[in-house]
Amino acid sequence: LIEAGKTVLDLGADFRLAPETYAQWYGVAHEAPALCETAIYGLVERNRQELPGARLVAVPGCYPTATILALAPFVDAGAIEVEGIIVDAASGVSGAGRGIRDHLHFSEVDASFSAYGLLDHRHTAEMEMELGATILFTPHLAPMVRGMLVTAYGRPSKPMTSQDALGILHDAYDHEPFVLVVDEPPTTKAVTGSNAAMITARVDPRTGYLLVLSAIDNLGKGASGQAVQAANVVFGFQESAGLSAIGVYP
Amino acid sequence: LIEAGKTVLDLGADFRLAPETYAQWYGVAHEAPALCETAIYGLVERNRQELPGARLVAVPGCYPTATILALAPFVDAGAIEVEGIIVDAASGVSGAGRGIRDHLHFSEVDASFSAYGLLDHRHTAEMEMELGATILFTPHLAPMVRGMLVTAYGRPSKPMTSQDALGILHDAYDHEPFVLVVDEPPTTKAVTGSNAAMITARVDPRTGYLLVLSAIDNLGKGASGQAVQAANVVFGFQESAGLSAIGVYP
Amino acid sequence: LIEAGKTVLDLGADFRLAPETYAQWYGVAHEAPALCETAIYGLVERNRQELPGARLVAVPGCYPTATILALAPFVDAGAIEVEGIIVDAASGVSGAGRGIRDHLHFSEVDASFSAYGLLDHRHTAEMEMELGATILFTPHLAPMVRGMLVTAYGRPSKPMTSQDALGILHDAYDHEPFVLVVDEPPTTKAVTGSNAAMITARVDPRTGYLLVLSAIDNLGKGASGQAVQAANVVFGFQESAGLSAIGVYP
Amino acid sequence: LIEAGKTVLDLGADFRLAPETYAQWYGVAHEAPALCETAIYGLVERNRQELPGARLVAVPGCYPTATILALAPFVDAGAIEVEGIIVDAASGVSGAGRGIRDHLHFSEVDASFSAYGLLDHRHTAEMEMELGATILFTPHLAPMVRGMLVTAYGRPSKPMTSQDALGILHDAYDHEPFVLVVDEPPTTKAVTGSNAAMITARVDPRTGYLLVLSAIDNLGKGASGQAVQAANVVFGFQESAGLSAIGVYP
Repeated sequence: LIEAGKTVLDLGADFRLAPETYAQWYGVAHEAPALCETAIYGLVERNRQELPGARLVAVPGCYPTATILALAPFVDAGAIEVEGIIVDAASGVSGAGRGIRDHLHFSEVDASFSAYGLLDHRHTAEMEMELGATILFTPHLAPMVRGMLVTAYGRPSKPMTSQDALGILHDAYDHEPFVLVVDEPPTTKAVTGSNAAMITARVDPRTGYLLVLSAIDNLGKGASGQAVQAANVVFGFQESAGLSAIGVYP
Repeated sequence: LIEAGKTVLDLGADFRLAPETYAQWYGVAHEAPALCETAIYGLVERNRQELPGARLVAVPGCYPTATILALAPFVDAGAIEVEGIIVDAASGVSGAGRGIRDHLHFSEVDASFSAYGLLDHRHTAEMEMELGATILFTPHLAPMVRGMLVTAYGRPSKPMTSQDALGILHDAYDHEPFVLVVDEPPTTKAVTGSNAAMITARVDPRTGYLLVLSAIDNLGKGASGQAVQAANVVFGFQESAGLSAIGVYP
Repeated sequence: LIEAGKTVLDLGADFRLAPETYAQWYGVAHEAPALCETAIYGLVERNRQELPGARLVAVPGCYPTATILALAPFVDAGAIEVEGIIVDAASGVSGAGRGIRDHLHFSEVDASFSAYGLLDHRHTAEMEMELGATILFTPHLAPMVRGMLVTAYGRPSKPMTSQDALGILHDAYDHEPFVLVVDEPPTTKAVTGSNAAMITARVDPRTGYLLVLSAIDNLGKGASGQAVQAANVVFGFQESAGLSAIGVYP
Repeated sequence: LIEAGKTVLDLGADFRLAPETYAQWYGVAHEAPALCETAIYGLVERNRQELPGARLVAVPGCYPTATILALAPFVDAGAIEVEGIIVDAASGVSGAGRGIRDHLHFSEVDASFSAYGLLDHRHTAEMEMELGATILFTPHLAPMVRGMLVTAYGRPSKPMTSQDALGILHDAYDHEPFVLVVDEPPTTKAVTGSNAAMITARVDPRTGYLLVLSAIDNLGKGASGQAVQAANVVFGFQESAGLSAIGVYP
């Protein structure tokens, strides 16, 4: 497709990682390592300048999107220790795709909550690459179709209050059309059906941790919504064309 | 009731904490501090020897039950740093009781996942007291009626593998009728309707963290089931009388 | 508001019925009987000609919308006996509004299905009025937020096959932007978040019954979506402005 | 197994129908027609006298159980016209078994309600056989794991009030350990995890219909619970051994 002059926005993982990192986490050699160098990581809030005219866009995965939006402002501000970050997340079942498998049967998912992919979920590599951090990522499956919440824990690299943390988020996102910094913990319901991310943060004076919460619709900002947003920027359309920051509620 | 010679098993929080800790987390002075000294914490797996003949039993809260069962073996074995433990947990909505409130309406809970009680949930004090640790506890509300999963993160205080961590759990619980150490991540569905807890653990060689997962039915082992178990021990009945380690599935 | 020259689209029941019928089913005298005569019933598929320029529009209730769309083509075609029609329906809980009541608590609604309003649900009057029929209406509460399915049973007034029944529906709706006649039983999920209705029909050669199934989003075509559709017609806007026939899936 | 002298309680459909009826609804010739004659239909409330010592018991299907319990008292009392009965029912997804199929994926079932098996669901034959009636049966899939509600409509064959109808049910079931006649519409949640059926009835003075509602747990009284109950009677055990009329709530 690239050779035919088309622009490609890829929702798969193939062009998100460096070829050697890809081989390490996916267990197979990359089939088109040369193309990897030309790919732009399609998180508009991070790469808005590089996307116009891009030929190959690696649209981010759902967990990395929620995580990078939550933590990048603190990394950029030098406000968080990048070693030993914990990312604890929950997703609706649509994150696992439409394929039918035993553990996706309604009777298995409904009324149940569990962790999966312990220690080695492949999205870890994508988060670490973009954030330049080491991360322990633990995803959970929640009994719902859509929605994703990331609860991230790190150590501040300098004294910081909850207000300071919220300030860092506001500075990063107040001009963004699809990232809302909120005071109260966000719910996944509030972003369902939209391309929005809702983020808040706290610093715990007792234990010293920085806590960041980030909610997206894994099928919106976490997948197709984000791909449309990136395509809008690639082609010079209005960035919000065809997208909404307001979801379907309730 | 105590003065009348009755035995009391209290599912409330009043006699779980020392009076001064109670005042600190609940914001009111304790009304019966003298009674607190006589109360036995009713987690049978920890206090089986002290419960027979007890007159006042403080039945543990749901989050502390799942958390203490997960972490106490590591604390007892000197295998975990007790400072800066992170407890990330999710509960079904029955943990919030039968009262009707806006955020418990079906339309609010269904298809949504969110955190609440950031930094200051009162169950933190109960976990810290029993474990002698400092803990950042972040509870979440999952769209289900029953079930609770604790995902806990700590730093090993000595070199340890996942096998070592599972070994510590097996040593602590293989003789217990209601605690099952499992290899795969437990689901809340597997314990729904039962008095069982299912626990597993991992050590991440990349980041060095110890990860412990613990699932209970918040209304079973997390509340009334546990109270019955404790009462059985108090009165010298068979410990499992009226209880099951097998839930309702699916 | 009317006196002040405003146009009113009322989502309440007050102007849907004749004053005497209102008094009979709601148990109180109507407070503005004169206004009732001027109100237009806002089911666009039935009253598209009367709506332009209307000053007072009684927007239909959710159950009557799904029911009237299902049965009116057969009544109009003289193809169904109007006495003794059975309307068996299920709705998501948002049909009961945002008020908090015991039976709307997540723990009551989740994983449960039940009938309510036996024999005397007030929407019966609205269906009977519009269809000129006598109806036994039995609504059920399904464990979901949105969506409504009507399963209606009647006696054909002349020999008819399933193909004939589908033909009557196609004749009535193939030109409608928001009513889709389908071959297979519709799901409420397919219309969630949209202003669409999906309808199918069968005639059972064994028992002779005509069976009609009709699915809407009770908050879309069953409430606010329909109100917007009616307003568009009242004011001469494009009928589908701000509305979609495609919902949020899954 | 029968030849080996074993007692068989069969949860499949093979021995519920006469061979010719089986062939008609299942589309294949019966493979053991001779055995059919010896099979006892295992609905204890109907066949308590025939079950002791039975060698082959055809345990009823879930929909027929709920339906026959609802309607048989009226048929036996000559109080309902047996032609043209309508049985409208909803079931949780566990009624479809553990097999994985597209339409049982969590994302398809959750938040959706739909009818299936229009006109020709095989359980119709079982209901008609036991009741000596002609029935139009329309099953629906509700977004829940367990539970089944039958809403049945018929014509009284003599003048009857709601009180009369409830009286007929009380006469039939007040001595039964697992059938509860209730005044208010039953919920499936109230019987989940139990072997109980909850039934109520109304007669509509406006349209003349008799309305009967019947709730069971499709995996309890609708399947394995009922099989245990029948086995208890076959072998002369206490009928309620291993069973409960009280479910898991909420």
